[in-house]
Amino acid sequence: MDITEIWEELAQDGGRIVYLVLDGGGGLPHPPHDRSALEAAQTPNLDHLARAGSCGLLEPVGPGITPGSGPGHLALFGYDPLRYRIGRGLLSALGIDFPLRPGDVAARVNFASLDAEGRITDRRAGRIESELNQNLCRQIQDGLDLDFDGEVFLQTVSGHRAALVLRGAELDDAIADTDPQRTGVAPLAAKAIRTSAEPTARLVDTIVAQARRILADRDRANGLLLRGFQRYDPLPSLEQRFRLSGLCLARYPMYRGLSRLLGMELLDPPSDFASAVAGLMTHYQDGHGLYFLHVKETDAAGEDSDFDAKVAALEAADRELDSLLDIQPDVLVVTSDHTTPALMGAHSWHPVPVVLHSPYARRDAVERFDEVACAGGVLGLRPGVHLMGLALANAGRLRKFGA
Amino acid sequence: MDITEIWEELAQDGGRIVYLVLDGGGGLPHPPHDRSALEAAQTPNLDHLARAGSCGLLEPVGPGITPGSGPGHLALFGYDPLRYRIGRGLLSALGIDFPLRPGDVAARVNFASLDAEGRITDRRAGRIESELNQNLCRQIQDGLDLDFDGEVFLQTVSGHRAALVLRGAELDDAIADTDPQRTGVAPLAAKAIRTSAEPTARLVDTIVAQARRILADRDRANGLLLRGFQRYDPLPSLEQRFRLSGLCLARYPMYRGLSRLLGMELLDPPSDFASAVAGLMTHYQDGHGLYFLHVKETDAAGEDSDFDAKVAALEAADRELDSLLDIQPDVLVVTSDHTTPALMGAHSWHPVPVVLHSPYARRDAVERFDEVACAGGVLGLRPGVHLMGLALANAGRLRKFGA
Repeated sequence: MDITEIWEELAQDGGRIVYLVLDGGGGLPHPPHDRSALEAAQTPNLDHLARAGSCGLLEPVGPGITPGSGPGHLALFGYDPLRYRIGRGLLSALGIDFPLRPGDVAARVNFASLDAEGRITDRRAGRIESELNQNLCRQIQDGLDLDFDGEVFLQTVSGHRAALVLRGAELDDAIADTDPQRTGVAPLAAKAIRTSAEPTARLVDTIVAQARRILADRDRANGLLLRGFQRYDPLPSLEQRFRLSGLCLARYPMYRGLSRLLGMELLDPPSDFASAVAGLMTHYQDGHGLYFLHVKETDAAGEDSDFDAKVAALEAADRELDSLLDIQPDVLVVTSDHTTPALMGAHSWHPVPVVLHSPYARRDAVERFDEVACAGGVLGLRPGVHLMGLALANAGRLRKFGA
Repeated sequence: MDITEIWEELAQDGGRIVYLVLDGGGGLPHPPHDRSALEAAQTPNLDHLARAGSCGLLEPVGPGITPGSGPGHLALFGYDPLRYRIGRGLLSALGIDFPLRPGDVAARVNFASLDAEGRITDRRAGRIESELNQNLCRQIQDGLDLDFDGEVFLQTVSGHRAALVLRGAELDDAIADTDPQRTGVAPLAAKAIRTSAEPTARLVDTIVAQARRILADRDRANGLLLRGFQRYDPLPSLEQRFRLSGLCLARYPMYRGLSRLLGMELLDPPSDFASAVAGLMTHYQDGHGLYFLHVKETDAAGEDSDFDAKVAALEAADRELDSLLDIQPDVLVVTSDHTTPALMGAHSWHPVPVVLHSPYARRDAVERFDEVACAGGVLGLRPGVHLMGLALANAGRLRKFGA
């Protein structure tokens, strides 16, 4: 039996939990000093937490699995990512606050540049401005002429990214990506993975072809690439599962979308992490069970292979922890959804360090918040999905199991 | 596949295993010295074992799960507590040596005090003496006049606690507790959770109403509260599963009941832990596969938030280990069914330290038997249910898997 279902049985009201997710926070030793960004960074507040709380390592999804942001976060929130699968299309739509309805099929869209023969020259259309993106979406939306008894929504996310949402009866999301993931070739036709998805695949092809005609006089950002088709079937919320009312203080669309999917309330996007901490201070008395803060800069620096920027992002986040620690959350967890080593310039499968602080967190011998020190902590090496149970227990939110 | 089923496939005869369960033995750092009871206690024998054996941490049921005594022990014996669920009613009946038959429905009973309007004034009837309890059980048992083609047994456990056992055809245990868990209100009617339990629920209501009339001239201990209805479906025994004949040397009813449920033989209850160790010395040559010793005082002190008493209980148990070590068991395991930190005055979810000693146990760098030291041991952090496999292997009781 899935342990998360036992937490559901045992959940009760209790203290307040604060999650701080340093996106892609962990990493690998980096030349020339062979230290990870966490080891190199001056992080007095994180180190204080490590000394005062319980440390360990989380394997977000499973051994050898490099998580996308969706699965990495789902695990931290107690949703086994092998059971709850969320495509990027769905997250994109949720992240722009699109009012999805059950049964909608969403996909992630890239504006791409195609040459005269229809071959992709740039999969991101030179990373166009969001404003141009909005204009193009509007042109396409207005110009579509479909024989379809339903609705089609094409909406800007940011830069070259948009979301496509199809709404109608009997839509099927078993459609392969049309993005070939390389240049010099034409976009793929929408391919139905099962027979029942063929009408939806034909609809998608028609939309893409009409969009191409509508944008025919442009020489860049003149085609659409689609990825991650997924039907929206709402997940059971954190409230339904764990009696946790959540408040999302994240800034970026994907994390906001994920929070909405789990039934959290959302504050307006904070302008930076300092504002998010200020928001936490303002709303900590509101009686939410879970407060979700998110730092994106750590992951962005890792993706850019910029080790120094990652160190700086960690140090900047650490400075804001001063104010966060002043709140004295009942339970404070700092961890990451996955590692993004600057050495790799990409997400990776390595376990992420975690520290959990509460009056009932067993202290261990760990003195620094980094990958190697945390390996010696009392939380041990665990699946990421374990974290929510530990947080709930420390908040007094789980009744005794059996007599 | 469940790993415990692989042990079943591989089980063979072998050496003798001794389990010493320090009930609620682990804990948390405690003021003013911020040491746990295990850290504060002088336990030269446990520390010797830690140096000579393999150490680690066990998570008895799962991350964040605070185990009752039943699930905590089941895990140590290799029964996944999420799969084998035992209610307190069943354990109560087993613990008084009641000869349960398959299909019996048992419940735990509290004698409570009710006022003239039938509202509960004391859920434990002032913790009456066991002798009064026995008299009341006999009065009720003799006075019941039921239209029921079966048998009803009401038997004293101790203090205000008793066990009710219903025996007859087609009884169903899907009945909610009648104990509202608070005073100032009347006991709840027995509520069938599914339709097939309605006849059993009506039978329970009749018994409770007749008991109330029989005790009508009393102003305390004049009502019954029922909890934990459960049908007795025998578990596969340790012998059936792992070819282990067990001998229980525990003193207290619940642990004896659990041992009986797993098919162990039982010695007469020892008067204290020293007597249990003496019993082990006497019976170690009897050819049992598993000897189960149990120390209750560690848990009782934790529940009472009495840190000093917990330290004393650990030290007292450690002194008796002298004699136990003289026996040189083939495999000796010392661990706990759950933590009971004096800081919390209750069971908790924290991992318990474990030491396993045998000629084939890999020695590690751990020098003391406590929570933080054991975190660095070679057994790592594991689910509690793993322990039995390790003990069987060290006793030479598991054949090679595959060729």
